[in-house]
Amino acid sequence: MSNDQTLTGSEATAPPRGFPTSEFEARLNRAQQLMTKYDLAALLLTTEPELRYFSGFLTQFWQSPTRPWFMVLPLHGKPIAVIPEIGANTMAKTWLEDIRTWSSPAPQDDGVSLLASTLKEVAGATGRIGLPMGQETHLRMPLADFDAIRSAHHGAEFVDATAIIRALRLVKSEAEIAKIAYICDIVSGAFEALPNLLTINDIELEAFRKFKIEVLRRGADDIPYLVGGAGLGGYDDIISPPCNRTLKEGNVLMLDTGSVFDGYFCDFDRNFAFGSASDATLQAYDLLHQATEAGLHAAHPGTTAADIFNCMWRELEASGASGSAVGRLGHGLGSQLTEWPSLTWFDQTVLQPGMVLTLEPGLSMSPGQMMVHEENIVIREDGATLLTRRAPAELPVIN
Amino acid sequence: MSNDQTLTGSEATAPPRGFPTSEFEARLNRAQQLMTKYDLAALLLTTEPELRYFSGFLTQFWQSPTRPWFMVLPLHGKPIAVIPEIGANTMAKTWLEDIRTWSSPAPQDDGVSLLASTLKEVAGATGRIGLPMGQETHLRMPLADFDAIRSAHHGAEFVDATAIIRALRLVKSEAEIAKIAYICDIVSGAFEALPNLLTINDIELEAFRKFKIEVLRRGADDIPYLVGGAGLGGYDDIISPPCNRTLKEGNVLMLDTGSVFDGYFCDFDRNFAFGSASDATLQAYDLLHQATEAGLHAAHPGTTAADIFNCMWRELEASGASGSAVGRLGHGLGSQLTEWPSLTWFDQTVLQPGMVLTLEPGLSMSPGQMMVHEENIVIREDGATLLTRRAPAELPVIN
Repeated sequence: MSNDQTLTGSEATAPPRGFPTSEFEARLNRAQQLMTKYDLAALLLTTEPELRYFSGFLTQFWQSPTRPWFMVLPLHGKPIAVIPEIGANTMAKTWLEDIRTWSSPAPQDDGVSLLASTLKEVAGATGRIGLPMGQETHLRMPLADFDAIRSAHHGAEFVDATAIIRALRLVKSEAEIAKIAYICDIVSGAFEALPNLLTINDIELEAFRKFKIEVLRRGADDIPYLVGGAGLGGYDDIISPPCNRTLKEGNVLMLDTGSVFDGYFCDFDRNFAFGSASDATLQAYDLLHQATEAGLHAAHPGTTAADIFNCMWRELEASGASGSAVGRLGHGLGSQLTEWPSLTWFDQTVLQPGMVLTLEPGLSMSPGQMMVHEENIVIREDGATLLTRRAPAELPVIN
Repeated sequence: MSNDQTLTGSEATAPPRGFPTSEFEARLNRAQQLMTKYDLAALLLTTEPELRYFSGFLTQFWQSPTRPWFMVLPLHGKPIAVIPEIGANTMAKTWLEDIRTWSSPAPQDDGVSLLASTLKEVAGATGRIGLPMGQETHLRMPLADFDAIRSAHHGAEFVDATAIIRALRLVKSEAEIAKIAYICDIVSGAFEALPNLLTINDIELEAFRKFKIEVLRRGADDIPYLVGGAGLGGYDDIISPPCNRTLKEGNVLMLDTGSVFDGYFCDFDRNFAFGSASDATLQAYDLLHQATEAGLHAAHPGTTAADIFNCMWRELEASGASGSAVGRLGHGLGSQLTEWPSLTWFDQTVLQPGMVLTLEPGLSMSPGQMMVHEENIVIREDGATLLTRRAPAELPVIN
């Protein structure tokens, strides 16, 4: 076995893993203020990003759909974890104190009565219980179990708490931004190295694999998301896994990755031409670069997500480009690949310092082809700061 | 940039990607037979494994929580995809014909009216609509949107269809088994190579990273799950990500991975000692090896999941071992890291040829430490066949 896996990433240059307890206290504090504002006696959470947000509980065990996991936020005091016994030791390493467990999986009552009694204890018989029910949320537990709890809580009422979670997670702390900046830097380097790792006539599957290995070598923890497209002069699909296609003369390859450091994502893409690029391809690339530049200049505290969308959209429209099927020109990111807000005509979210966003213009080329371009930014007092290293102004060509 | 990333994996030896249309036809056929049996007019699906099962739609885009995706199975005819426009081109490459899209994200009606009208068209005003609501399932769409659809369907009734999905996915086709066998083989090789890649006093984080790179080099597509534990003679936690801990003399490292080829998982672990292992450690390892052997011999068509559990449990109990917090001694796997059934005292699932299972005995060691051991098998007419290469009978020691 060769031993050529010298790792270029080093934890020495990485931001510290985890968060100080003060960060969790601040998150909880803000949540409880909003719970008071919305007249909630408890907040029920069932999804990975939310449990992690309030506890620091980080595990890939969520890949297993077998067991539900719950967290209950009271109006006063620390969050309560209501979780399968297999997670008890890991949860005990967080700042939480009240950790209630059951042996899961269980044949009839898989945490349901433990959750119900915890909700009753925290919210009382008639309190309002907040639960994220709105856009970009889902309930990660069997629906039949939730229906049983909801119908058993005769006096209590479950109400939508999406606004609370959204308000909290929209703005990132400096510690969160440092993790996103670090993974953006790692992946920027991997993209810059790619022309030296690939050659014309490589197989798409192997190109993806080399990129993943390069991203790991440079210090990423994982690559939960690497999709792309390739084709002559453009591509018709931007969410597919790689295939056995050969990257031939005139092809354009787009790689779009959500790589992760300590639970925080980057989300950006890069385009590469093989052999040469047609004028139409170069023109599309240039236009997307300009549209991104327009978004970069437009992104200031006080403007809205819709403002940035409009600004980028006007740039594309002025050149006669038609939109892509993506449905937006960027979005938030952080502990998930995509988060609120959406850069669309209808999203009136006001930008605040600490928001982390993608700028992601896309356009349709004929026939049935498209091109996309993406950078990641953080909103600061004086405007947008790039977290990614800006894509080259000219489309890189791989020979 | 060094160019030392020679890839040892080769698609030449891999099973073909995707499935022939006949496989999807057979899956649909079985589903529609069960729909008839349970008197369902439509089946509504919202989760990645289910949409993929009936269409072959494979993308990591599910990482983004922004958009809901729906599939409606009618009693006759092909599945209907009701999906965001961004997925239209990718879905059009599957065998599906009826693909209905909307521009998502949308401010008010994010696919809800399109889904509601499709359900009404397929199920009529009073038909029963099946939806997975039971254990190991969840509803991947905003709860408020589902509540709106459920209350608007005055005549129609939503009923739990977990039994249908469970029955279908419990038994794997030969094409599915070939993919699982391939990823088990790749990862078996990576585990066998690990003693040559690691040395005593390595940092745990770097050990995990080297293993991931090795798994990719050998031909895996992704490593969505790599957790583990390490400690003196055993470990207290088996679902955590790696940390900056040094792997010192007397430590035991356990790596547990769900790696993927073409959307199908392996799920098994291996233990390694550093420098030397204590008698208690060697004894625990030996006991788990024996318990796995007992499970291997017990797993035949006609026996139950509970039978295998009991057989392995007796082996552990006979040696005075106490159980771990895992809550079961194995489970199904396939297009998810864990699937039905559970190897527990209560799971009366009768084993059938084509079921793919993990055998995963675990035991508690003092003080507060545990050890686990895992293999993957497929049930054949004449008993269990290993998909993983059997762990060494003696604990490997890394120096």
